[in-house]
Amino acid sequence: MTYCVGMVLDKGLVLMSDTRTNSGVDNISVFRKMFHWQKPGERMLAVMTAGNLATTQAVISYLEERIKVPGERHNSLLEAPTMFQVATEIGRLLRATIEERQEANGDRGRGRFTASVVLAGQIKGMEPRLFLIYPEGNFIEASFDTPFFQIGETKYGRPILIRGYDRAMSFEDAVKLLMVSFDSTLKANLSVGLPLDLLVIARDGFEATHARRITHDDPYFEAISSSWGDELRKAFHALPDYSFYGGDE
Amino acid sequence: MTYCVGMVLDKGLVLMSDTRTNSGVDNISVFRKMFHWQKPGERMLAVMTAGNLATTQAVISYLEERIKVPGERHNSLLEAPTMFQVATEIGRLLRATIEERQEANGDRGRGRFTASVVLAGQIKGMEPRLFLIYPEGNFIEASFDTPFFQIGETKYGRPILIRGYDRAMSFEDAVKLLMVSFDSTLKANLSVGLPLDLLVIARDGFEATHARRITHDDPYFEAISSSWGDELRKAFHALPDYSFYGGDE
Repeated sequence: MTYCVGMVLDKGLVLMSDTRTNSGVDNISVFRKMFHWQKPGERMLAVMTAGNLATTQAVISYLEERIKVPGERHNSLLEAPTMFQVATEIGRLLRATIEERQEANGDRGRGRFTASVVLAGQIKGMEPRLFLIYPEGNFIEASFDTPFFQIGETKYGRPILIRGYDRAMSFEDAVKLLMVSFDSTLKANLSVGLPLDLLVIARDGFEATHARRITHDDPYFEAISSSWGDELRKAFHALPDYSFYGGDE
Repeated sequence: MTYCVGMVLDKGLVLMSDTRTNSGVDNISVFRKMFHWQKPGERMLAVMTAGNLATTQAVISYLEERIKVPGERHNSLLEAPTMFQVATEIGRLLRATIEERQEANGDRGRGRFTASVVLAGQIKGMEPRLFLIYPEGNFIEASFDTPFFQIGETKYGRPILIRGYDRAMSFEDAVKLLMVSFDSTLKANLSVGLPLDLLVIARDGFEATHARRITHDDPYFEAISSSWGDELRKAFHALPDYSFYGGDE
């Protein structure tokens, strides 16, 4: 499994992903699921992947190869004129990769090898944008009403995102919120694991404003993980108490 | 979908279930998923169900019919000498009900009509016990390490249970914790809905210590739901702040 979140804020984009892949619980590895490409001063693109690892690695390899072939307009992440076209291109590639593998496996391939992608980025002169690309190749864009996307093991970490997210929040608060959301997920599901990758893309910066890997011994993540339990319990005790004799009885 | 939680505490057992059933999002109904039977002073049993509604209703109807036939030892919830035998009996019934429906539908029936059951209760002279019964008819029992069971849409509400549960907590705190867990789930998933059913079974009471339905206009649930958002945000802001320049950079 996997857990990745991409968020749109007033100030820009924030992405976090875990790095655990597993095939069964006894075959666990660490693989990067977050990738980014930039053309300084002009565009910054980032991608996070969830799903079949062979599929997502093939998609990323194709993307990187195309970048290296100069002059191939419309084929390259770094040449497409809009984020919409970048999303269209990645969707086409994702769908083709999945389909090829499914077809090669006939009946046994049905419904397998799927993956999905979160794409975030900004191209000069346009807004920062965030997309969720489905295995079918189509995609949706984050909006005012749905300002973040999760892929993979999304449920455990969702309630705190719903309640903590605020479009106007600082990058620092957004990172804190993501750490809490990831911590809740890590505590509940073995298939999501440290280290985590973090990427912050400030609006109109066209570069990785802040990028790092959060490892097992990260003192900030440890602090969040241990104090969140205490703070949650405090929050819980601050709620009004239930009474067997109140209410409608 | 469905969300049900059963908990073992030092003081006894606490159960909560939602009442929404849906077949697609455009066909939503309210059905009770929690049932209980008692023999005052001797035993108290409660069951919560998740899964195919026709299956779970059939199981409950069989159980109720058997109770009405006097003298059928070993067949009746109210006669079996141990909770283990009650669980075995319900497991057998659940599996038979599912299998009958699957077989009647041949190939199209495969993997369908499944359901699972949480069984809680106490028989005089023995401990209060809690079981999770699978569609296959086998079951597991709650233990010191895993003192609560969830069925249905379990993920959204799990992080707060993991962090808030304490075996020694009062019934009132357990109800509060369940309300928070249900509120997080309701906020994230349309297929879990109010009203909720609540049942508290005090150790050695052999009766429903406290049973009620929590409806849309329940003032306590409304208070929990609205203050939990505020308290969560306070808890979040009480956490140490992230800094781009701290840590390993």
